[in-house]
Amino acid sequence: MSEMIIANIGELATPQGTAARRGEAVNELKIIENAAVKIKDERIEKAGPEEEIIPGKDSCTCRIIDARGKAVVPGFVDPHTHFIFAGSRADEFSWRLQGVSYQEIMARGGGIVNTVDDTRQASARKLYSLGRKRLDNMLDLGITTVEGKSGYGLDKETEIRQLEVMKALNRDHPVDVASTFMGAHALPAEYENSSDEFIDFMIEEVLPEVADKNLAEFCDVFCEEKAFSVEESRKMLEAAEKAGLAPKIHADEITPLGGAELAAEVGAVSAEHLLKISPAGIEALSAEDVVAVLLPLTAFSLQEEYAPGRKMIDQNVPVALATDFNPGSCYTQSLPLLIAAACLYMDFTPAEALTAVTLNAAAALNRAEEIGSLEAGKQADMLILDAPSYRHLPYQIGTNLVETVIKKGELI
Amino acid sequence: MSEMIIANIGELATPQGTAARRGEAVNELKIIENAAVKIKDERIEKAGPEEEIIPGKDSCTCRIIDARGKAVVPGFVDPHTHFIFAGSRADEFSWRLQGVSYQEIMARGGGIVNTVDDTRQASARKLYSLGRKRLDNMLDLGITTVEGKSGYGLDKETEIRQLEVMKALNRDHPVDVASTFMGAHALPAEYENSSDEFIDFMIEEVLPEVADKNLAEFCDVFCEEKAFSVEESRKMLEAAEKAGLAPKIHADEITPLGGAELAAEVGAVSAEHLLKISPAGIEALSAEDVVAVLLPLTAFSLQEEYAPGRKMIDQNVPVALATDFNPGSCYTQSLPLLIAAACLYMDFTPAEALTAVTLNAAAALNRAEEIGSLEAGKQADMLILDAPSYRHLPYQIGTNLVETVIKKGELI
Ligand SMILES: [Zn+2]
Ligand SMILES: [Zn+2]
Repeated sequence: MSEMIIANIGELATPQGTAARRGEAVNELKIIENAAVKIKDERIEKAGPEEEIIPGKDSCTCRIIDARGKAVVPGFVDPHTHFIFAGSRADEFSWRLQGVSYQEIMARGGGIVNTVDDTRQASARKLYSLGRKRLDNMLDLGITTVEGKSGYGLDKETEIRQLEVMKALNRDHPVDVASTFMGAHALPAEYENSSDEFIDFMIEEVLPEVADKNLAEFCDVFCEEKAFSVEESRKMLEAAEKAGLAPKIHADEITPLGGAELAAEVGAVSAEHLLKISPAGIEALSAEDVVAVLLPLTAFSLQEEYAPGRKMIDQNVPVALATDFNPGSCYTQSLPLLIAAACLYMDFTPAEALTAVTLNAAAALNRAEEIGSLEAGKQADMLILDAPSYRHLPYQIGTNLVETVIKKGELI
Repeated sequence: MSEMIIANIGELATPQGTAARRGEAVNELKIIENAAVKIKDERIEKAGPEEEIIPGKDSCTCRIIDARGKAVVPGFVDPHTHFIFAGSRADEFSWRLQGVSYQEIMARGGGIVNTVDDTRQASARKLYSLGRKRLDNMLDLGITTVEGKSGYGLDKETEIRQLEVMKALNRDHPVDVASTFMGAHALPAEYENSSDEFIDFMIEEVLPEVADKNLAEFCDVFCEEKAFSVEESRKMLEAAEKAGLAPKIHADEITPLGGAELAAEVGAVSAEHLLKISPAGIEALSAEDVVAVLLPLTAFSLQEEYAPGRKMIDQNVPVALATDFNPGSCYTQSLPLLIAAACLYMDFTPAEALTAVTLNAAAALNRAEEIGSLEAGKQADMLILDAPSYRHLPYQIGTNLVETVIKKGELI
């Protein structure tokens, strides 16, 4: 049995509870100055004012970490990424800066097709090594749990390969990886103009193997005019749910198609993007407690307006933030920039932003009972910051303040 | 005599020349695939296609660094920071997010006064250790030369202390520090309503000691309605120039007061900020080859419009970019984010952004003959990136791609 105490904590800052927080409550972080955390094996035994933890400190033979003058927060959770891919699209980024249209970009060989080609051609070994390096970067940034989506195969073999690589990485790497099957990410050339047949293919040919091999916890679908209709998305997600995969939706990113409403209808864990969500969509998420996963760095990268996150928080939608790390629309893993963008450009308070990248992000992955806050019984995932307060996270814009990562009770 | 070769470079990307580049030329990087750089002592002996450098490679007993598949660019230069300060202002940042006015922030003890108090109270030893840590961060980000301004003392003792600390850091740390005396950064309480007396004090009491002790290369002044008038700024800069300090100006940040025109008139090395520069101001900078130092991260942090950098480049103004790292308006050293913001929100091409953080930034510090490009004879300051092309710098938003730093021919 291993024990560890983080002592002398300048400021312990954490959301509280075991479910996605709503409305005003999101802003009520628990802040304790002069705090300590006692860890036993993989779990938090106690977190609170140092004098309440200290009797254990004097007697225990455990390792003591001194966090004098520093802030301690829960490990960050990034609940929406596409981090298993090969190749890169820097040319396309430069073209986009020049105002080249998406049609023209496609004609030049850019767009998602480019990444699908590169990923189909990449071996599992190659994808594993790329993914591993990206997980290392995440850990440096304090991301202790990440979601990863398939969807750069759009064929059976590659979709399965992406998911198998994530399963292997989850086993081998300290960062926990939550896998999402997203075969319905885009329509491949082979199925041009037959999106219904493609959905059938995914449901009949790919999904059963994903389920049999236990390769994914979630199923996601890109519900959008140029991708899959509400009906197709519903069909995919209902089949996935029957197979044991919890639904998620890329919803209302480009047009207010009703993806948020569909998310509420099918009891999705989360609805993601939501730049164009309708007032009815917000109400639907709120009523059904669907977590809204917002991706401001994608908006920043695409020079778009941000999703109406403030409105959602005010209407009691549980809101999480994610990087959307992917090689096309948002090539960044910068959690620090994510927090700054939410505070500066979406009117999140620093407390709401912290909740959105910890507890609510955990809720978007059905893990709010396990991680996302610093409370007795939860998994011991936490960060010691090189700063006296969590409020430095947005203040020191785009700066990695993570000094020490503790994952499942282990110093990384 | 020490020799080193960077071999197998996937892409060498550099601006060219020994002066600030103007207009179209800024966009003409020299790009060489399959390149090499030969370094002798502190200088670049040759940089070019590998086959031209290779005879030396076979015969030489020097160290060989393999940069296979990677891009190599000049060391970054950050030509506008206020990196010597004590304390921090995270509270003020949170208040600002809530829409609290600057007046109210001042009333609560925030604003520059806060940093002045903390810096006045900090020992030279304390300032040195804070500054040293910040220089370490810069070096991690590939910043090999930085400018630092005094101006958090606003009294003789502290202004001198800030400059002495920078002089010591320049001596002790691999990053080259260019020091700027900016006693006229704000009006301290002691001189309320007597800005003319304060300027006289700076000219008569502080400047002579700065010059005698050789503590600064440049003199800067905050020319703004709520700070120092055009006349006061001119007086300060003319006195400084007589004392051997080259002029710089914080100009036209909040109102188009004519700071850019003054910069041209006094032959300033650079005019900085320039969010509100007038058309006449742009013409004046262009005519006199004054470097415009733009600070988009400050605009990002203050939720302001960006300076019209595109217009300036199109009108042949040499344009540099800087972080403006300071504890009030812009607490970030993120050069990667700076490049991304310029490309995404100021319409810089990736090539223009690279020029702006290398050669033109060097020109803003009177160092374009020495650094800022990878050419024979220049100081060997360069970066090996963990990316195949410099175009990944804006593409991988806010991501530090610097894998290896070479400063004055030494591997850091
Ligand atoms: Zn996505
Ligand atoms: Zn400044």
